[in-house]
Amino acid sequence: MRIPVGRATIAAMISLILALAAAAQTPPATPAPPPDPAAPVEADWMTIPDDEIMVMSLPGGRHIVIRLAPRYAPVHVANIRRLARAHWWDGTSVNRVQDNYVVQWGDPTEGKAMPEGVVANPPAEYTWPNWDGVTRLAKPDPYATRAGHSADGWQLASNGRETWMPHCYAMVGVGRNLKPDTGTGAELYTVIGSPSRPLDRNIALVGRVIDGIEHLSSLPRGTGPLGFYEKPEQRVPIERVRLASDLPEGTRPRFQVRRADNARFEAYVRARENRTPPFFDVPAGGADICTVPVAYRRVPAAANN
Amino acid sequence: MRIPVGRATIAAMISLILALAAAAQTPPATPAPPPDPAAPVEADWMTIPDDEIMVMSLPGGRHIVIRLAPRYAPVHVANIRRLARAHWWDGTSVNRVQDNYVVQWGDPTEGKAMPEGVVANPPAEYTWPNWDGVTRLAKPDPYATRAGHSADGWQLASNGRETWMPHCYAMVGVGRNLKPDTGTGAELYTVIGSPSRPLDRNIALVGRVIDGIEHLSSLPRGTGPLGFYEKPEQRVPIERVRLASDLPEGTRPRFQVRRADNARFEAYVRARENRTPPFFDVPAGGADICTVPVAYRRVPAAANN
Repeated sequence: MRIPVGRATIAAMISLILALAAAAQTPPATPAPPPDPAAPVEADWMTIPDDEIMVMSLPGGRHIVIRLAPRYAPVHVANIRRLARAHWWDGTSVNRVQDNYVVQWGDPTEGKAMPEGVVANPPAEYTWPNWDGVTRLAKPDPYATRAGHSADGWQLASNGRETWMPHCYAMVGVGRNLKPDTGTGAELYTVIGSPSRPLDRNIALVGRVIDGIEHLSSLPRGTGPLGFYEKPEQRVPIERVRLASDLPEGTRPRFQVRRADNARFEAYVRARENRTPPFFDVPAGGADICTVPVAYRRVPAAANN
Repeated sequence: MRIPVGRATIAAMISLILALAAAAQTPPATPAPPPDPAAPVEADWMTIPDDEIMVMSLPGGRHIVIRLAPRYAPVHVANIRRLARAHWWDGTSVNRVQDNYVVQWGDPTEGKAMPEGVVANPPAEYTWPNWDGVTRLAKPDPYATRAGHSADGWQLASNGRETWMPHCYAMVGVGRNLKPDTGTGAELYTVIGSPSRPLDRNIALVGRVIDGIEHLSSLPRGTGPLGFYEKPEQRVPIERVRLASDLPEGTRPRFQVRRADNARFEAYVRARENRTPPFFDVPAGGADICTVPVAYRRVPAAANN
């Protein structure tokens, strides 16, 4: 199996091969290999609150799970929660799929009334003043002098004066018109191609797709301007959008994020910046923040507490 | 139409709106707006030689056009031309679609004999010593101290000692096993997600998809390890792969690339680094090389020569 590529999977496969090879050995017994310093321990996994998990369902049992970021975009996320609780997105659609850019969804008529309490003109929640990262990448990138991760696993970028979430793959943002409009949150998009970092600091990010992104990224591309579907029947209907906290206990999808505030995550960051043999011969000595993603995992609903 | 995004399209739309608004005006006539200094003139378009254009055809009239880079990976590209001329890929398949990473194609059995003349172990054509770029981006990135474009439109990166093509979206590379294997070119992949820059200098790039990438990027993701399709029937059959130079004159797909060695392209680079109102309020002051793509256009076959 020729593979152009490594990523975490190849490391895992190699570990598995080594483990199998070790297990296949008979006496004299060999000592267990040392633990991977970049592997998380159980305590590194943090359960995401139910009201920060939103599930969008497309026909055919295609579920897309979004983690919301209320700390960074509180007014937009409050709007989004109101929209979800009002079942506002039910019956709307995915209207735009632009290759190497974004998938966008919402009300294609843009005429659907907002539920009560939705703030029509939220503030521009694009940046915040304090750096709250717990990691720091080795090198700056063309968009930021500093990049890293928050303790609870958000990718961050900074210019020394303000901090923001970078437009990495799978990040979810708020469609808007020209300023002073910042978007209500009713029209959302997710990045499905190269990171769209020029949008950083120009638009509100509100979360990230943490499961099911392939149901969006593999949709047929729209052939109209900006990747909009040209015919209404090409749009992909949205059956429903719900917060996990609004679902019955025991049926709520539950996810955990790997915390970044520990030595194991730090070792993971360094490993991403310097890939190693046998596949990688030339370590880069650095990585862009979008190439240092944070792991998520689904946990059984029964594990609720 | 709320749009999260701008890119060249929005600039084009705004230009169109302004032009229409201008056209709608009656006397007193207004002077024409000044020409966009970043727009190419006709002389900036360079026709790509027929033997550097390769077309892969999937069922249903889905054609993917690849521009080859023989200057940078001559032995690999020579292999690829031999494979295409032998019709070697006909009846093989797309075997792997890994979300936010690569689409890979070739012989899933890995047992198909090579045509005569294919070099089994090409040299590691990953880098070259001289910087041959004609543009230079304002800022380095975590993978390179310098980035820019060759006169004929390839994106380049350098560390001051060697130059290489970066793993941007749509770049085509050669699958390989562990070293000293570099891959023959029979197993190819293209990047369909975030740029895979850690692969830079670790694998041979041989070209770029310049048309039809959406036929690969929207394929269903494989559910096996590394995104390989688990069942043979999930693989996407390849009907044929041909060099344009092996097709009858008059039927050859013909493409042009925008040359980078002129003031208009330089202005385009600067504009990509500093997006402007009305949509963008905060210019980044820089861009990564993958966010400064080079334009291609199809020209009528009748325009050959």
